[in-house]
This record gives sequence, structure tokens and C-alpha cells, in this order.
Amino acid sequence: MIVGIPKEIKEHEYRAGMLPVGVEELSRAGHRVLVQKGVGLGSGIRDVDYERSGGTLVGQAEEIFATADLVVKVKEPQASEIALLRDGQLVFTYFHFAANETLTRGVLASGATAIAYETLQDRRGSLCLLTPMSEVAGRMSIQQGAKFLERPQEGRGILLGGVPGVEPAHITVLGGGVVGTQAARIAAGFGASVCVLDTNLERLRYLDDIMPHNVTTLFSDRHTILD
Amino acid sequence: MIVGIPKEIKEHEYRAGMLPVGVEELSRAGHRVLVQKGVGLGSGIRDVDYERSGGTLVGQAEEIFATADLVVKVKEPQASEIALLRDGQLVFTYFHFAANETLTRGVLASGATAIAYETLQDRRGSLCLLTPMSEVAGRMSIQQGAKFLERPQEGRGILLGGVPGVEPAHITVLGGGVVGTQAARIAAGFGASVCVLDTNLERLRYLDDIMPHNVTTLFSDRHTILD
Amino acid sequence: MIVGIPKEIKEHEYRAGMLPVGVEELSRAGHRVLVQKGVGLGSGIRDVDYERSGGTLVGQAEEIFATADLVVKVKEPQASEIALLRDGQLVFTYFHFAANETLTRGVLASGATAIAYETLQDRRGSLCLLTPMSEVAGRMSIQQGAKFLERPQEGRGILLGGVPGVEPAHITVLGGGVVGTQAARIAAGFGASVCVLDTNLERLRYLDDIMPHNVTTLFSDRHTILD
Amino acid sequence: MIVGIPKEIKEHEYRAGMLPVGVEELSRAGHRVLVQKGVGLGSGIRDVDYERSGGTLVGQAEEIFATADLVVKVKEPQASEIALLRDGQLVFTYFHFAANETLTRGVLASGATAIAYETLQDRRGSLCLLTPMSEVAGRMSIQQGAKFLERPQEGRGILLGGVPGVEPAHITVLGGGVVGTQAARIAAGFGASVCVLDTNLERLRYLDDIMPHNVTTLFSDRHTILD
Amino acid sequence: MIVGIPKEIKEHEYRAGMLPVGVEELSRAGHRVLVQKGVGLGSGIRDVDYERSGGTLVGQAEEIFATADLVVKVKEPQASEIALLRDGQLVFTYFHFAANETLTRGVLASGATAIAYETLQDRRGSLCLLTPMSEVAGRMSIQQGAKFLERPQEGRGILLGGVPGVEPAHITVLGGGVVGTQAARIAAGFGASVCVLDTNLERLRYLDDIMPHNVTTLFSDRHTILD
Amino acid sequence: MIVGIPKEIKEHEYRAGMLPVGVEELSRAGHRVLVQKGVGLGSGIRDVDYERSGGTLVGQAEEIFATADLVVKVKEPQASEIALLRDGQLVFTYFHFAANETLTRGVLASGATAIAYETLQDRRGSLCLLTPMSEVAGRMSIQQGAKFLERPQEGRGILLGGVPGVEPAHITVLGGGVVGTQAARIAAGFGASVCVLDTNLERLRYLDDIMPHNVTTLFSDRHTILD
Repeated sequence: MIVGIPKEIKEHEYRAGMLPVGVEELSRAGHRVLVQKGVGLGSGIRDVDYERSGGTLVGQAEEIFATADLVVKVKEPQASEIALLRDGQLVFTYFHFAANETLTRGVLASGATAIAYETLQDRRGSLCLLTPMSEVAGRMSIQQGAKFLERPQEGRGILLGGVPGVEPAHITVLGGGVVGTQAARIAAGFGASVCVLDTNLERLRYLDDIMPHNVTTLFSDRHTILD
Repeated sequence: MIVGIPKEIKEHEYRAGMLPVGVEELSRAGHRVLVQKGVGLGSGIRDVDYERSGGTLVGQAEEIFATADLVVKVKEPQASEIALLRDGQLVFTYFHFAANETLTRGVLASGATAIAYETLQDRRGSLCLLTPMSEVAGRMSIQQGAKFLERPQEGRGILLGGVPGVEPAHITVLGGGVVGTQAARIAAGFGASVCVLDTNLERLRYLDDIMPHNVTTLFSDRHTILD
Repeated sequence: MIVGIPKEIKEHEYRAGMLPVGVEELSRAGHRVLVQKGVGLGSGIRDVDYERSGGTLVGQAEEIFATADLVVKVKEPQASEIALLRDGQLVFTYFHFAANETLTRGVLASGATAIAYETLQDRRGSLCLLTPMSEVAGRMSIQQGAKFLERPQEGRGILLGGVPGVEPAHITVLGGGVVGTQAARIAAGFGASVCVLDTNLERLRYLDDIMPHNVTTLFSDRHTILD
Repeated sequence: MIVGIPKEIKEHEYRAGMLPVGVEELSRAGHRVLVQKGVGLGSGIRDVDYERSGGTLVGQAEEIFATADLVVKVKEPQASEIALLRDGQLVFTYFHFAANETLTRGVLASGATAIAYETLQDRRGSLCLLTPMSEVAGRMSIQQGAKFLERPQEGRGILLGGVPGVEPAHITVLGGGVVGTQAARIAAGFGASVCVLDTNLERLRYLDDIMPHNVTTLFSDRHTILD
Repeated sequence: MIVGIPKEIKEHEYRAGMLPVGVEELSRAGHRVLVQKGVGLGSGIRDVDYERSGGTLVGQAEEIFATADLVVKVKEPQASEIALLRDGQLVFTYFHFAANETLTRGVLASGATAIAYETLQDRRGSLCLLTPMSEVAGRMSIQQGAKFLERPQEGRGILLGGVPGVEPAHITVLGGGVVGTQAARIAAGFGASVCVLDTNLERLRYLDDIMPHNVTTLFSDRHTILD
Repeated sequence: MIVGIPKEIKEHEYRAGMLPVGVEELSRAGHRVLVQKGVGLGSGIRDVDYERSGGTLVGQAEEIFATADLVVKVKEPQASEIALLRDGQLVFTYFHFAANETLTRGVLASGATAIAYETLQDRRGSLCLLTPMSEVAGRMSIQQGAKFLERPQEGRGILLGGVPGVEPAHITVLGGGVVGTQAARIAAGFGASVCVLDTNLERLRYLDDIMPHNVTTLFSDRHTILD
């Protein structure tokens, strides 16, 4: 099979659709992997790393879309990319169709087969390609929150963990799933007093087992949230 | 020197003035140690343990007070004991004279030399014989507090640490000295959210370094206490 | 459906059959909820909180039993309550029928349908309404044990966690289920040296993963318990 | 004594020279405290809080500088404030004279007595009014560093703590004093691998005792820093 | 049933096929247990302990193999033991047939039924009799590694945890299963900086939840291992 | 000043008297540093590292002893080195004179000035060059103890930390100074149950503050040690 990795073109997207190690695995398995030049620059990966892993460097995205049986990307195809999709071609990326009618109609019209990362489930039914994104999101959320509490960002001038003799911030995390758990962990690491609410008591019990002591758990209902 | 250890007679006092190992140390150093029979029963120490450590068992307290150059006790002499004190005799025990005029006048009249545990200072000036009492007091305080929060003791029916999904109790500890530190430690171990107030920021910094994460520190002033 | 929440009348029972948030949920779903006046006083909840949540306050338990399709309680019906049960009425509460023949025969005779909290299982087969009770029981057990080791309660005068320089108590917990785990956690928080015995090695491995370092695990058999 | 608290006028300074509790302490001790209206707004403190604490609200800074025996501020006097200083008046604030010749000459010319926060030492010789600033600075430094590693800030797109399966960042902290210690603590809380360098081995030993396990210590010399 | 426990004869094997508590359980269940004299000496268990548990002491292994319906051992039968196996006899021990053709052919020829510990699975499919061996192996591995890093063993003279001011060792653990997890735990306890690689992200997430902070996790692929 | 670093010649000594960074510091300060070729090989440091740091490589120890004003070593001078010492020469190394009369008389006769590492005190009076040796010794002690508990070393076959379901070893550490503290820390990291005895209660309190929960402290006297 010919697999193609075009460079991402959506704004603020610096990731690559595949790491060199993935290219290597596919090459070893007998596939041909076309890699657009500069695909990894945003993540600090050089073209030569892809070449050494068995990839074939290609100058233009058009060449990849025209040749590849399977296109592997990060973000949903942009307008210029949708135009390149071919009937019968496989495209593996985040699509989030529900939020984007133009995209959905465009892909339907292309005849390409879309496999959306966000719908993949492992044997336990967990969304295995969404989980790492959620972990990053959860950890980042506290970092962003901390930033927007600073005065120069017009925040209230609160330092999450306080300092000795000054009370730490109180942070309420709604939901103890992947995002909430990672947010609670980082907030606790910052020194804040954290409370995680969830309606799943089994989950709260597990969090109670593994979280640092400045994280408490609270059964979530309309009244506890209002308090 | 003749050292005497009378059995404690104050109500609710189950301790002994000296452990067998102390008797052994004194005996080895050439002193004679008179130990009243049954002195250690309240603490689960048998007379034979004192004998094996070199002590001489004596039936009556009168014999000890009449013979000993140095009397070692736990609590301040009770009325019947004050009457037995002799001019020039050394008495080593907790006295807390300020709280008890009868005791003070009695000891003064006896001519005995009183050395009060509670006034002993080590090289750093810390009250080395009060500290262990304070440690016990601090740890016990939370145990007592937990008990009096139970409904059968007419408390509010609060469990200090809550359970998963139920908020833990908030405990405020005024003062981060020996008592407060030990109280905070046990309260945190119970799973409560603990806040220690003190005016000594250096102390709060140390507590911040060593306490579990469910203990926070707060500079103590009239306003923070009112909050 | 008409749902009724009578005030608990069993001695030492201070809980309410439903919190205001539960009344609110049922009201929103279109049910009518009759709440006996004073039902939440033992737990610090005012009648007005139930009213604001959509409940209708009712003066007498008789009125509730006479009207409600579903009665929600905490404890098994007492003699005076059994007399009020009606044919076809649903009663949702802890029953523990096996321990109480009078209760069992009374409910059978009434024709009411009894749903016992203690028999409810979730999808994994765990007894989801017993677990929180067991968590409270496990945490309370150490608090009670600590109390009965005090001298005034004729205990041996042992402080669970000792103090620096004095050995902590050794606590053996038979069974690493919900009760045992919570007991071990609180005992460890007190500073005791804790050993949990169980025949389920998988469970002991999990406890080994999440418990503080002063909890050890031991495979439970007749010999290890005797030691 | 008449004590005056003018509102801070330096850009980006939101703090107040004194909290209401300080005003209360001084009032109780018999001093008169003049507080400029709006002094606490930047920190969320209302004028009425100062009034209730015994302060007298004053409209203009000029009035305070003209009347007060002691002026308490946060930042060094700005040009307009220097002009108001009077011979014999006490001014208590951060000055950092070494960095500002105009300020130094202005204060000298005024005849006022300047007491600089940054030079106060407690009995142990530690700079007690600088330490809390350093604690805040140390904790903030990691928050800032995390922000500038984000891609939108043109950083390298590194998340300090990584996520499970992705290596955390390696953070080197030069100096294990107040700033470095707090920076290390927050970085460790974020989940980074932290190394603190210092030439004071005693300090590194203490950090080794109290820091979480993802902080290591390294004797600082030219070679270890270059590595 | 007659159960027999012969003394292990393989070199460096000090364990016994059954502990006294196992003998007791079988005896209580009505079985007869023959125990070879000295069977527990290598593990510090006396013959009298087996006798008190209901076992019948027997002098020679031949007697046990000739009589027992079920032989319980630790290691695979050695040459002299294979010769004693009887048609229809059950033998329960570690066999590891794949590694030893002589053993396999010998047991086949004997007509005995071999049940290999290493193949037993519990309801979840985990190899329940291999897991404890793996736990010991994982924990021992670090102890052995530490030894072979010592100079007298011609190692590089590295102390796993360093000391304050000296960097700890970096330990990479390939695989986060039972062996790897226990190895990581002990290495972390030693103070080393530990990285666990595995291809199972769910497992890495659990390790991230429960491991001390000096353990990081890394998705395992050919490139991350080479780095 | 001319400083010389001869290669260590005592058996089993692999360290160098000075690291390249030390040579660099002295060179920068204007001293000349003679370094014997191969001085760092036992510690993995190449001659070129010393050269780049400003050292002058020298072939023979004789040349160094003949020229250097100050000789810096690790171990006490051996017979062949004592013969090279010169009147007025400074020698800085571990001497431990009390244990070695030949050494003492030899150095006295040489007229050299000996400065023994083991006697250096910092301002607080602590033996600053002995402490790191004690830290290594304390950490190594547990590693050695673990090794000698293995059966192949004729030990009792005990794994310090046990495994889940098997009790860990109990380790008693006599003395809570530098060696004892580091030994306790590593033993605790191994998963053992550790008890540290000391007569200094202040020290035990500090250990109680900073040690993991499987370390307990016990006041040390003849009786507690016998128990």
C-alpha cells in the first residue's frame, strides 16, 4: 500500500501525521511511505529523520494526494485538501464532522473513505485516540487558568498555590474523567486545594485512592455544584 | 545517692516516675534506687522488671520519702505526700506551682528542693520535658475532637475525613508549635482539610515543607482568624 | 407517582430518606413528593430546603403512608410504620429481613412491595448502596478503636501513632474489602503500623500499590492469623 | 503617631501598603491612620474595610504626605511623591536605591528618613521582607516558563509534565535558595524532572529530605552547569 | 486422597512444595499428607510444624512417590525423581517442558499426569502462579543490578540513588508488566531516576497514577528504546 | 603555589584526589597543578579532561612529590609515598592516624604538614568531609545487607521488601545520624519496615517529619535495644 503524509496546513497546527518510527514500521511491513518535505519541522523533526526511516520525500501535497492509497493526517482536510481527495482513497485523521457541514459534504462528494480518529474504540470501548488529547487538554487547562488569573491578563492576581502563610486557590473540577483527572493532578501539583465532582462514585473512589491529599472528591448533583 | 520512686496516687494518673531502664542506669552509676511495689502496674510494668534492673522494692511510700535523697515522680505531690517531704530532700516532678497555692506553700514550708520538669530547658532553650507531653496532647486532641463530633456524644455527626464523594471536615489549628503541629498531622492523616495559623512565618514555611498536602498554612492575625 | 419521605423514628437514626436534591430531581421529573415536617432536622436540613426543592410538607407520617405510591426511608419500618403499609405500596429502604422475623412477617402480611437497599447491585455486581455504609463503618472503626484504647475507657492507654521516639501501635486488619481498606487507611493516617490480611492476592497487590508505606499486606490463612 | 497609607501610583502595582488588619493593630495601639480612598481597590479591599478597622479615609495623597509622621507604601516613591516628602518624615517601603539615582538624590534632598523593606533583617540575619517576594517569584517563574514554552508564545511546544507515555521536561534550577526552592517545588508539581544545583551541600541535603522524588540535587560548579 | 511432599533435590532450591498451613487445610479436608523429613529446613520450617499440622513424616522420597496419588513439588522432577513417577499419578509443580526434552519425554513415558504451575490461569486469564515469582524476580533484579554496579564486582562504581549533590543513576525498565513494575518500584525506592517503557498506554497510565514521582513512563517503540 | 595530584596506589581505591573542575578553579586562581597521568582512569575521567582544565600532565608520582608545595590525595600515603614526602610540604588527604602507627611516625619524620580530611569542621562544627562518605556508607549498608540475606551468600533468603502478601523484613537502625538516616531511607525505599533508634529526641522528631511512613523512631536505651 502507498501511504502518504502531507504537511499540515491548518493554522496553529504544528504536529505531523506520523513520526519517523511509524514510517519505519510501515516500510518494514512492505508499504511505501510518501512524506512531504518539511512535514515535521513544526515538531522539530528533520526530513532526514523520515528518510532514514524509509520514507520517500515528496515536494508537494498534490503528489501525495494523487498517489497515496491511505493519507494520514492530524487535522480535518482543509478546503484545498478536500479538493484533492479521490474516490476510494482512505483518509485517517481527526474529522469531527458534526461541527462542520462543508467538510462533511466535501468528503462525501469526494468518494474517499474517512476514518475519524475520534471514533476509534479499543476492546474496552474507550476512545483510545481521544484520550491522549484529553490528557494534554486537562493538563493545559490549569496552566491556562493560572495565566488568566495573573493581573497583566486582567485576572484577580491569584497564585494557585499561594505561598507559606497565604491560602492557596480553591479549584473545582467538574467531572473526574480523563480531562478532569489530569486537570486535578496539575492543580494539586501547583499547591491548590482541589475538589473533583462526578456522578460516578466508583471513579471518585479510585481518584481518592491515587490523588495527592489536596484533592477531595464530591458527588456531583445540582445542589453540590451550586454550593 | 538514694533515689526513690513512689507510686503515683493522683486520680487518673497511671504512669510511673521512672522506667526500669532508668533504675538500671542509676544502679550502674552506683546509686541505690528504692521502688514502691506496684509503681508500674498502671503502665503494664511488673515489680520484677524493676528488681531485675537493680531496684529495691519497698512496700510503703513513707519509707521512700523518709530515706531518699532524691524523689522522682510524675505529678505534683498530693497533700499526703507534701506532709512527707523533708528539709534538703530533692523532688523532681511536674509541679506547675503557679496554679496551686497550697502546693507552693506546702513545698516551701517543707524545706525540700523542688525541680519542676516543666521548667527544664535544653541548650537551645526548648522545654524538653514539656515537648513530649505536648506531642501527646496534640495527637490526642484530634482523637477527642473526632469523638465529640459523633452523634451519640451530641456532636454534629461529622466524620473528619468524609468518604469518597463526601467532603471532609475543615479543621483550623491555631498555632503551629508542638501541639498544633501534631494535631495538624493527625487531622491530615484522618483525611480532613487542615489549616494551621501562626504568626511565625519561618515556622509556617517549615510546616509547608514537611506536612502532607491537605495541610495549608495561614499567617495568623485578628482578621484571618475571624474569617 | 406520589413519593413520600416520612421522618425516621428508630432510635439513634438521624438521617433523612432523601436529600432536597433528590426531591428536586423527582419533582422535575413530574412526580409529587410528600415530605414529613422535620424530616431533615437530625442532619441539619431545614423544611424550607425541601419546600424550595419542590416537596410538599406534610404534618403526619400517617398521611404519607396513606397517600404515597412509593415510600423512601433509611431504616426498616418500625412496628408503628408496618401497621401503615398498604397492599401494592412500594417501600424502598434498608430491610435486613434475615435478622428480624417480626419485620419480615409484617411486611409480607401488608402486601407492600419491599425493595431492600442492601440487595441492590450495579452492573458489576457490587452492592452499591452498601459500599458507602461500609466506607463509613471502616473509617469509624479506627476512631472507635482509638477511643477504647484510652485509659478513661479502661483501655491500655495506647496512642495509635505513638509520638517521635515511642513505637506506634500495630494494627491488624482482617480482610481488604471496603471496610478493611478504609480502616487501614485511617489507621495509617493515625501513624499506626498496619497489616491487612486477605486471601485475594489481586486485592492485596492493589492495596500495595495505593496504600501509604506504613500499610503492609499479608496473605491470610489460619497460620498467618494466629501469628 | 500619624501613619499614612497613600494609594500606589506606579504602573502595574495593585497592592496596598497596609491591610485593614494592620490599620486595626495601629489604631488599637493609639496611632492615627490616614488611608487614601481606593487604596485597596487593586487587591479587592473596600474603603469600608479600612474604616471599620479604625482608619480615617482621606481623598488626596497630598493630605497624607503633609500630615503623616510615617508613610507606609509598597513601591519606591514616584516623582510626584518625592516632591511631597518632608524633612523628618519616615517613609517605609521598597526603595532599591542602588538601581535609581534620581530616587536616591530626591529622597536625600527631602530630608525624609527612608527605611527600605529590602534591607530589613530578622534575628537570624535573613531578609524577612524579601523572602515572601522571592517565594512568589520562584513559584511564578515556572508558571511563566510553562507559558513561554507554548507554541502560541513561539515556544517549543513542550508540556512541562508530559502525559503518560511522553517524557516530561527536564528543568534545571540554578540555586537552592528561596526562589530556587519554590521554583523546584512547582516544577515538580507540574510533573517535570527537576535538578537543583547549589554550592551549599547542607542546603541540598535539606532539599533532598523534603522535596518530592522528581527533584534531584547536584553540587554546582562550572562543569556540572555546563553538562 | 494421599498427597505427598518430597524434599526438593535440585541444586540451589531451598523452598518446600507446601507450607504447614497447606498440610493442615488438606488434613482437615480428609486427605492424608505424607511429608518427607527435612522438607522445610531450607526455608526454616521444622518437621514438627508439619506434624502438628496433620502431616505424616516419611523418611525417603521413594516412599512418597510410591504411595501418593498427588505429588506436590516446587521444581520439575529431576532424573532420579522421574524414575519414581507412576502411571496415573498426579504431579503438581513447575515443569517448563519446552526447555527440557529429557524431562518431557520422561514424564510422558511415566504415564503420570503433569499439572504445570506456570500454565494455571485464574478467571481473568492471568497466570496466577507465575505472578508471585515475577514479583520476586522484578524486585531482586534491581538488587542484583545494584550489586554488579559495585567496583569489587567490576562494575562502574555507581550508587543507584546517588547522595545529595550527586546525580542518581538513570534506570530504564523495558516493559511495565509484573516484573517491570516491581523493578521500577524498587529502583525508585533506591532513589534512582526510572523510566518504564511499554506499548500498552493503559498500563502506563496506571503506573503514572501509582508510582512515586521519580518514575516516568514512555511509549515503547524502536526509536524511543534506541534513544 | 604548585599543587600536585598523584594517582592513588592503595588497593581498591579508584577515586582521584581532584576532579578536573578543581584543577580548573586552582589554575584560574593562578596556581600550577601537576596531574599524574591516568589519575582519573578509575573514575572514568580522561587525562585530556585534566589538561583542558589547565592541569599539567606528569608521568611519575616522584616528580609530583618532588615539586608540589601541596599534595592532594584521597587515601593516606602508602609506604612508597611516605618516602617521597618532603620537609615543609603540605599533604591534604584522609589520614586516620590513630589507626596506623607506621603512617603517623613516617609522616612526623618527613617534616611534612598533614591536613587530615576527617578532621575538617565547618562553621557549625560538622565534619564536612566525612559527611558525604557517611552518606555513601549508609546507603551502601542496606545494599550490602540485602546481598548477604540472599541464599547464595548463605543468607536467610529474605527479600527486604517482601512482595504483596508476604511480610517485609524488619530493619533496626542504631543511630539516626548521617549513616543511620541514609540507611533508613534506602531500607524504606526497598519496602522494609524500619525502626531508627537514637538518644537524641530532637533528631528523631526531625526524622519523623521527613521520613516515609514505613520508618518509625524509638528512643534508644539499653532496654529498647534488647527488645
